[in-house]
Amino acid sequence: MAETPSGKEAGAAPVSRFEVRTSRREEWVDVTEDVAGAVTASGIVDGLVVLWSLHTTAALTVNEAADPDVARDVSGWLARNVPDDPAFRHAEGNSDAHVKTSLMGPGVTLIVEGGRLLLGRWQGVFLCEFDGPRTRTVCVRVVGG
Amino acid sequence: MAETPSGKEAGAAPVSRFEVRTSRREEWVDVTEDVAGAVTASGIVDGLVVLWSLHTTAALTVNEAADPDVARDVSGWLARNVPDDPAFRHAEGNSDAHVKTSLMGPGVTLIVEGGRLLLGRWQGVFLCEFDGPRTRTVCVRVVGG
Amino acid sequence: MAETPSGKEAGAAPVSRFEVRTSRREEWVDVTEDVAGAVTASGIVDGLVVLWSLHTTAALTVNEAADPDVARDVSGWLARNVPDDPAFRHAEGNSDAHVKTSLMGPGVTLIVEGGRLLLGRWQGVFLCEFDGPRTRTVCVRVVGG
Repeated sequence: MAETPSGKEAGAAPVSRFEVRTSRREEWVDVTEDVAGAVTASGIVDGLVVLWSLHTTAALTVNEAADPDVARDVSGWLARNVPDDPAFRHAEGNSDAHVKTSLMGPGVTLIVEGGRLLLGRWQGVFLCEFDGPRTRTVCVRVVGG
Repeated sequence: MAETPSGKEAGAAPVSRFEVRTSRREEWVDVTEDVAGAVTASGIVDGLVVLWSLHTTAALTVNEAADPDVARDVSGWLARNVPDDPAFRHAEGNSDAHVKTSLMGPGVTLIVEGGRLLLGRWQGVFLCEFDGPRTRTVCVRVVGG
Repeated sequence: MAETPSGKEAGAAPVSRFEVRTSRREEWVDVTEDVAGAVTASGIVDGLVVLWSLHTTAALTVNEAADPDVARDVSGWLARNVPDDPAFRHAEGNSDAHVKTSLMGPGVTLIVEGGRLLLGRWQGVFLCEFDGPRTRTVCVRVVGG
């Protein structure tokens, strides 16, 4: 890796997209491999990647991927603390899913180093479904330095 | 769009700023058009945009913009679950607003594709005021590929 | 500053890393100076910086750094609202820390303008320890325009 910015790889790869098919109302899907594949396909070695969910009732987050109980515990806390509530006014009846989406966030920006996602040993990227089952689309923009 | 990074538009446009005048203590303002205008003005066609609120009691998030009840339901959940609390020690009495700001987050990074913000059909960008009324400043950095 | 993207500084500086040694189970450490130093060392004047924690029980957020009571109030709200819970199944017994990490988020993307972090007067960057004491690593990727 160059000691100073080289600009040799400067550029934004075309946006790629992948779909996630969920099977329950609430479900966290590990999409780390999908994201890693999109980074490899971009050809960009050093830079960053912006991940974006096009949805308002599904989010993206990074948490422990080794033990599936972690994702269950985080989504369980959300389920207990953001229940359906008579105070909600949105007529579709899925306001809890909108709250959970803003709490987790619809996008994540990660570092790309040496052609790979820079993640900690236990980290994985999750698509958090809060109003499934549905087919969700995640967009991936890799920008090289 | 090029199949490989072209570098033709490489560059960071100067940071632009826009102001949001809020009229209540808690209020979500749809700023999608302000952001879209800043992206167009940058002249950058493919890349990303970093949005940043300069404040510690106002946040930025993306959620459904079509039905205003969604923003009201999300901010209502925050109001019910982050009330003023005798346990708070910050002397200004607005600790609830600081908590809400970190839960929603002070910044959002979005994808720019073909000169436009890449958002889902129902998504809009909101400035979330938690300690108004005030005049808030949002900074916009567009970086081209 | 150029009126249009110049591309002159296009490039990603090598990823830098700094460590944070925490001394309690829950502790927020102001790392603004560490981040600012990494930005200066990158030599990049205009662009953005992606901050990333390699951990699943420590987060990054931006909030008021002037009065330490603010960080205590935010972490206090998290402690009261995400307690240890018999419903948690992750065997390590630190599921509360995983929930708090996803609520705050493991990364932050900031604007770099004129060689400096673009932050509001009261804003500072915090490493939020939720399962210490440990030594944590924060990664810094600066990308120039």
